[in-house]
Amino acid sequence: MTALDQLIEALRRLPGVGQKSAQRMAYHLLQHDRAGADALARALQDAVRNVRHCERCHTFSETPLCPICADRHRDARLLCVVESPADQAAMERTASYFGYYFVLQGRISPLDGVSTREIGVDQLLERAADGQVEEVILATSFTAEGEATAHVLAEALRARGLRSTRLARGVPVGSELEYVDLGTIAHALVDRRST
Amino acid sequence: MTALDQLIEALRRLPGVGQKSAQRMAYHLLQHDRAGADALARALQDAVRNVRHCERCHTFSETPLCPICADRHRDARLLCVVESPADQAAMERTASYFGYYFVLQGRISPLDGVSTREIGVDQLLERAADGQVEEVILATSFTAEGEATAHVLAEALRARGLRSTRLARGVPVGSELEYVDLGTIAHALVDRRST
Ligand SMILES: [Zn+2]
Ligand SMILES: [Zn+2]
Repeated sequence: MTALDQLIEALRRLPGVGQKSAQRMAYHLLQHDRAGADALARALQDAVRNVRHCERCHTFSETPLCPICADRHRDARLLCVVESPADQAAMERTASYFGYYFVLQGRISPLDGVSTREIGVDQLLERAADGQVEEVILATSFTAEGEATAHVLAEALRARGLRSTRLARGVPVGSELEYVDLGTIAHALVDRRST
Repeated sequence: MTALDQLIEALRRLPGVGQKSAQRMAYHLLQHDRAGADALARALQDAVRNVRHCERCHTFSETPLCPICADRHRDARLLCVVESPADQAAMERTASYFGYYFVLQGRISPLDGVSTREIGVDQLLERAADGQVEEVILATSFTAEGEATAHVLAEALRARGLRSTRLARGVPVGSELEYVDLGTIAHALVDRRST
């Protein structure tokens, strides 16, 4: 395989990139933006090397504690559970939540063999039992798998005497949090309900 | 700027990638496919290092002569002029052209200050004057700039006693060759007309 074909193949691993756009990207970089190709290669290597997970909330972080977990002015009584760093970033952009987070590694998916263990439920239960958390806000996706995950988490939290709430169903059913408009998320946050 | 932000920024330089998809790509790579990120970084560096331009037709090549120029079984009487390696690849996929190619560095664009010098017209004229070429097929885009480029090339070729043809206007006006369906390109090739 030529270096060009290998580049096209590597670009196809990016989400949302098919054969046609991968080819277009490769041609563009080699014909018009070799500096951009170099910059991207370096950025990828730096990110793989330096971006780790926050030891408390498991979001992306270059420091042991992410900036949010390191912020002492947040409301320690609230812990919001999301499926991914992207969903956490969407929550933050609403500017209407001031507690802490716990970022799961995705959601439970029995068909794909993804169980509570894989997504970090044990760590969540440990984090939620710090004695300060009074309410765990379940902000997993409003898909079948996200709902199932919220259900399992609610049960596990209740068994440990912890109260959990769920974002209101203002979030359109079937959609991923990351792609929901911020006003809807903010509204759903206000209307959160007990589980 | 964090390594994550730098990665998002670098991904945004890819054609067709906005803030949202760059973020999604970065999160995906770091959360689910760090091996893919490493592979992409290596592929970019390999391609930048190894992919050069064919010394005869100027398409991408890892060898001094590209496989097409090195193929002695092509029809040396035909030379097809395209704007980019992507357009050349589209021509090849029609499987209805068996001559050689000359790949311009884009097209003339007076507004962007891109003149005949920048796109390699001098090299084309030299290549076309090898004594074997009998017909130069102008396969630049059917946009205003592509038509202007074809016009300028036809004049320059005529001044040197060289005959040129243009792909038939079966190609939808306003579209880029790369995105045209193969049947249309094949048809336009058969119907090519003198300029
Ligand atoms: Zn954290
Ligand atoms: Zn060549």
